[in-house]
Amino acid sequence: MSADNSNVDNAKVDNAKVAILMGSQSDWPVMKRARDVLAELGVASDARVISAHRKPARLHEFMDEAEAAGIQVFIAGAGLAAHLPGVVASLTIRPVLGVPLEAGPLKGKDALYSIVQMPGGIPVGTLGIGGAGAKNAGLLAAEILALADHGLAQRLKDWRASQAEGLQEIPQD
Amino acid sequence: MSADNSNVDNAKVDNAKVAILMGSQSDWPVMKRARDVLAELGVASDARVISAHRKPARLHEFMDEAEAAGIQVFIAGAGLAAHLPGVVASLTIRPVLGVPLEAGPLKGKDALYSIVQMPGGIPVGTLGIGGAGAKNAGLLAAEILALADHGLAQRLKDWRASQAEGLQEIPQD
Amino acid sequence: MSADNSNVDNAKVDNAKVAILMGSQSDWPVMKRARDVLAELGVASDARVISAHRKPARLHEFMDEAEAAGIQVFIAGAGLAAHLPGVVASLTIRPVLGVPLEAGPLKGKDALYSIVQMPGGIPVGTLGIGGAGAKNAGLLAAEILALADHGLAQRLKDWRASQAEGLQEIPQD
Amino acid sequence: MSADNSNVDNAKVDNAKVAILMGSQSDWPVMKRARDVLAELGVASDARVISAHRKPARLHEFMDEAEAAGIQVFIAGAGLAAHLPGVVASLTIRPVLGVPLEAGPLKGKDALYSIVQMPGGIPVGTLGIGGAGAKNAGLLAAEILALADHGLAQRLKDWRASQAEGLQEIPQD
Amino acid sequence: MSADNSNVDNAKVDNAKVAILMGSQSDWPVMKRARDVLAELGVASDARVISAHRKPARLHEFMDEAEAAGIQVFIAGAGLAAHLPGVVASLTIRPVLGVPLEAGPLKGKDALYSIVQMPGGIPVGTLGIGGAGAKNAGLLAAEILALADHGLAQRLKDWRASQAEGLQEIPQD
Amino acid sequence: MSADNSNVDNAKVDNAKVAILMGSQSDWPVMKRARDVLAELGVASDARVISAHRKPARLHEFMDEAEAAGIQVFIAGAGLAAHLPGVVASLTIRPVLGVPLEAGPLKGKDALYSIVQMPGGIPVGTLGIGGAGAKNAGLLAAEILALADHGLAQRLKDWRASQAEGLQEIPQD
Amino acid sequence: MSADNSNVDNAKVDNAKVAILMGSQSDWPVMKRARDVLAELGVASDARVISAHRKPARLHEFMDEAEAAGIQVFIAGAGLAAHLPGVVASLTIRPVLGVPLEAGPLKGKDALYSIVQMPGGIPVGTLGIGGAGAKNAGLLAAEILALADHGLAQRLKDWRASQAEGLQEIPQD
Amino acid sequence: MSADNSNVDNAKVDNAKVAILMGSQSDWPVMKRARDVLAELGVASDARVISAHRKPARLHEFMDEAEAAGIQVFIAGAGLAAHLPGVVASLTIRPVLGVPLEAGPLKGKDALYSIVQMPGGIPVGTLGIGGAGAKNAGLLAAEILALADHGLAQRLKDWRASQAEGLQEIPQD
Repeated sequence: MSADNSNVDNAKVDNAKVAILMGSQSDWPVMKRARDVLAELGVASDARVISAHRKPARLHEFMDEAEAAGIQVFIAGAGLAAHLPGVVASLTIRPVLGVPLEAGPLKGKDALYSIVQMPGGIPVGTLGIGGAGAKNAGLLAAEILALADHGLAQRLKDWRASQAEGLQEIPQD
Repeated sequence: MSADNSNVDNAKVDNAKVAILMGSQSDWPVMKRARDVLAELGVASDARVISAHRKPARLHEFMDEAEAAGIQVFIAGAGLAAHLPGVVASLTIRPVLGVPLEAGPLKGKDALYSIVQMPGGIPVGTLGIGGAGAKNAGLLAAEILALADHGLAQRLKDWRASQAEGLQEIPQD
Repeated sequence: MSADNSNVDNAKVDNAKVAILMGSQSDWPVMKRARDVLAELGVASDARVISAHRKPARLHEFMDEAEAAGIQVFIAGAGLAAHLPGVVASLTIRPVLGVPLEAGPLKGKDALYSIVQMPGGIPVGTLGIGGAGAKNAGLLAAEILALADHGLAQRLKDWRASQAEGLQEIPQD
Repeated sequence: MSADNSNVDNAKVDNAKVAILMGSQSDWPVMKRARDVLAELGVASDARVISAHRKPARLHEFMDEAEAAGIQVFIAGAGLAAHLPGVVASLTIRPVLGVPLEAGPLKGKDALYSIVQMPGGIPVGTLGIGGAGAKNAGLLAAEILALADHGLAQRLKDWRASQAEGLQEIPQD
Repeated sequence: MSADNSNVDNAKVDNAKVAILMGSQSDWPVMKRARDVLAELGVASDARVISAHRKPARLHEFMDEAEAAGIQVFIAGAGLAAHLPGVVASLTIRPVLGVPLEAGPLKGKDALYSIVQMPGGIPVGTLGIGGAGAKNAGLLAAEILALADHGLAQRLKDWRASQAEGLQEIPQD
Repeated sequence: MSADNSNVDNAKVDNAKVAILMGSQSDWPVMKRARDVLAELGVASDARVISAHRKPARLHEFMDEAEAAGIQVFIAGAGLAAHLPGVVASLTIRPVLGVPLEAGPLKGKDALYSIVQMPGGIPVGTLGIGGAGAKNAGLLAAEILALADHGLAQRLKDWRASQAEGLQEIPQD
Repeated sequence: MSADNSNVDNAKVDNAKVAILMGSQSDWPVMKRARDVLAELGVASDARVISAHRKPARLHEFMDEAEAAGIQVFIAGAGLAAHLPGVVASLTIRPVLGVPLEAGPLKGKDALYSIVQMPGGIPVGTLGIGGAGAKNAGLLAAEILALADHGLAQRLKDWRASQAEGLQEIPQD
Repeated sequence: MSADNSNVDNAKVDNAKVAILMGSQSDWPVMKRARDVLAELGVASDARVISAHRKPARLHEFMDEAEAAGIQVFIAGAGLAAHLPGVVASLTIRPVLGVPLEAGPLKGKDALYSIVQMPGGIPVGTLGIGGAGAKNAGLLAAEILALADHGLAQRLKDWRASQAEGLQEIPQD
């Protein structure tokens, strides 16, 4: 991930508009789908492993730095009792998107409930469980940014059209 | 609701930034919570009963008109096999927020799955089931609009602070 | 699949009485069980990959062409937030049968709810999750066509009798 | 219900094209929605309380009589471990539609699984839980009959159009 | 299984006190655990593949023969929409024990509901999903037979005591 | 309930063949359905409120007394984490039937799992959740006793026939 | 609740050994059962409405004050996406007990998963959903404190014995 | 495990403060995570395979011995209808922690309900399903013991800090 996995305090951060947060290194293969679709659309993102529970002070600090550095949308993925998206949402009034991850025996149903059922007052826009959800979180973040970026809006339209074209109409045995 | 329930083709529409869609008149008491919190924050919204299935052509037409009229964010609520948010999302690249409604014997769990488990490519940011979800959809729409509206961002901060102050610390018997 | 996977606009289409629709090429190994049992019963079918969301205009167009070409029954399979059967049903008054596919961590329970819990007014006759459901969709389509086709009715009776005979009564170690 | 609730062995039976079966008298208020929508569409139906388990011989007998009397489509509703639709389907090659009823603490989820998860070979086209499902079973039966009845096909188109017109676009406080 | 898998109409049947029924040959590796524990306890059983739906007349016939041949307890295992135990129970007043089998994406939860939620009047004593359930069905059948067989009662007591002794108290790394 | 709710140590106990156990007085209105159907069939039963957890020594003592007094079948009902049936089953080799009760927010699904999923070695024959399950537990107990009681077997046959006759064939508006 | 609902900074706080936290005033009627059973056992507790999300800084501050004031065990109740117990647990190494509350359409199943499925490293001892869970949280807190308080251990033994005595053995009609 | 898996009646037992109980040898690889984290924190534990159902008298005896030998906290893990933690809790007023194990087709959801939904009066502090739950049970036991052991409290603080430091902030491709 090297160069494009910039930290908040370096040059790349000035360009990142989306932060992608996750509770554990092992979540990255799934959460990377958010970064990948954002990169396809020309949107820089900043990915972090940061726990809701293990370092609460560090998370507060990160959120302040991230907003100052220009992050517009936060994407947070978590499994099990998935508190990260909700805790992030309690620390910002910028849009927060949550991705329930498929971990443990309940296969992400616990994470889905822990993210989507936030009480009134602290919204988290929740996407589907696992990889499709992570990809859609990237797309929704791009849709949000595109409201103020005509070039990105056009790239989103092109991207969606290319998806439709990509459909193979005739199944092959 | 009279005056503030403006239609797309009248003066109010020029100001509405959020469309609130639902499949049936009976969904309104819940979905109204999205409008109410948006109104508290000074954001005009346009509410409609429009079915994903009963008048597909009318929905396509509405989406075109709505985007032309300046709608930036779509909120769609539905119960049971809740297709409205996903169908709306397939017709626009503007952000779509989905609210699963508590209808029928499965109490909104069917609607939650039908909205949140969208396949990769067509995102719907899903909120919680029922009234808390509708209110949070309004708040998330406001958070999205506030990225380009400093006054609204300040009102959101004030609103959230007032919520925190409103907490009664001492339970009363 | 070549020759027997005819398109609506060619000779084969004139004979196809059943259309088998699915959202993705990867659904074909399961949905093929509908085609296979229909073929056993001498009923030609037309199979398509066509998305409810990615190309809505193409789906409308296809439905018109299909009805004109003589399709009597539509079978639609989908996973996750499975909207395809319901959207197909909203575009026709011919019988639509839905097959929930086992995709993602919820194993088709999400697809089942998204298909079977259609609101009153737009019916989808839903079969079981996965391969047994696809096979039964083919059989139910044949039962519907057999109401007006005595030869097919006889072949259905023979098919079912052969199934019963096929039961091995004595388990072997 | 008087006159139009004719028995198999009387004059009305000659006209009934749909049988509506249920396991208990208490299921009637819900299952009546199938009959009502069929009646709106001009289709006569024959409704019966008949148990899958309590009188198996009587059910076999009824099925033979019903087919001889011209029943084309069977609708069966049941709650709990809902075996009636599957047992009916095992006794005919005519289309069988199942309606899971909301009974007991599992609220119809048990009935849904007991109806929709039929093994490969004996299809039951399953509708949603409860009243909306019963209504949709009536509509799907009419769609099946309309394949061979142009007048009914036209009445179905008119019925659906009238549903769409009935949508109130503007919610009222 | 050869010799001890005797049919109702041969010598072995005279001794069999328990019938073990299943809907498909593929259920045998699990259902065999019922036979095995019965054999350990010295109880002969008669195992059959017989479908609730594919050959209803054959099932009725079998039940009559089985009762005449001295079968006291029926064990029936089935997966998916598991109707076999309930249908068997509707054809006898001898005790029927049901074993939900783990088949398909719902992993036996559908079978559990389809067996245990029988309506009032037709009881099925249901055991756990899969192999432990099959074994326990064998044990419960033996407990029932032991009410009139002191030797079997003693063997059951010995069997249970041996199970307790078999517990290894100290886990080993 | 007075006279027929005899205790183990009085005359009635000598006749009771079935013990009906429950964890709390509040379970009685549901569990009474087991006693009622047994009484209809002429089988005396002994009903007790006795906790699996609060008085374990008393439960052990009761089980010894009950077997000595001639109890052949134990019926145990419990809600929530419903351990009573399993604990009873661990203390006897006579047949134990379990009734999951609908208590608390999970509506008996927790009790169903806690009763039916017993590990291999300690069987509990589980009936449906709530009143229908309690009634069926009484019937299954009677079926077990009828294996050695021809009069009871005949009364069971008569009872079931009367149930079938009781079915009203024609629904009334 | 007046006098015994003391704040951390007053005299009562010096005696409180257990803090009872909840996210909303409306949770009090259920959470009060923890305080009531603690009071029966002679353990003072300090009850607070304090949100995991709305005032994160206040929660951190409260935790520091509470530990300094001698709180040994924290009980936290929450509904929906119930983050409060987990967030409390991330701020202390003293034992935290969680009570899932029955709120919204999922009836506390969402809260259960959000509390019990904490990732490895931050434990929350979870009790049952609703009132029985709140009472048991109070009892478990007392059991923990009793490890270092012989008088309390004796009162717990007496309390449990009195519960067992309270069981009514004979159900009354 | 050799030396540190001491039995209650030997020298090691004098030091063990935590007992780790499980129903079957096969549960050990998961339950060992409780012992491992306790060992990291310098807390000796005593691990046993002991069944709730197969040897009830032995369990009662063990509990008495364990308390006499100084066990302060009991951890019990079980799968399926997981009664062990609740039965242990009914035999002591010392804190009991329950770990639902992922066994069988319901993947531990049955065990979770069977442990966490204990009726009011007999508390079990329940941790998550499987390995993370076992580890957290060890940590919660240590937190309880640390209330009276300043050295352990400090080691817990260090342990948690080391966990936070261990978080890798930058995901690697």
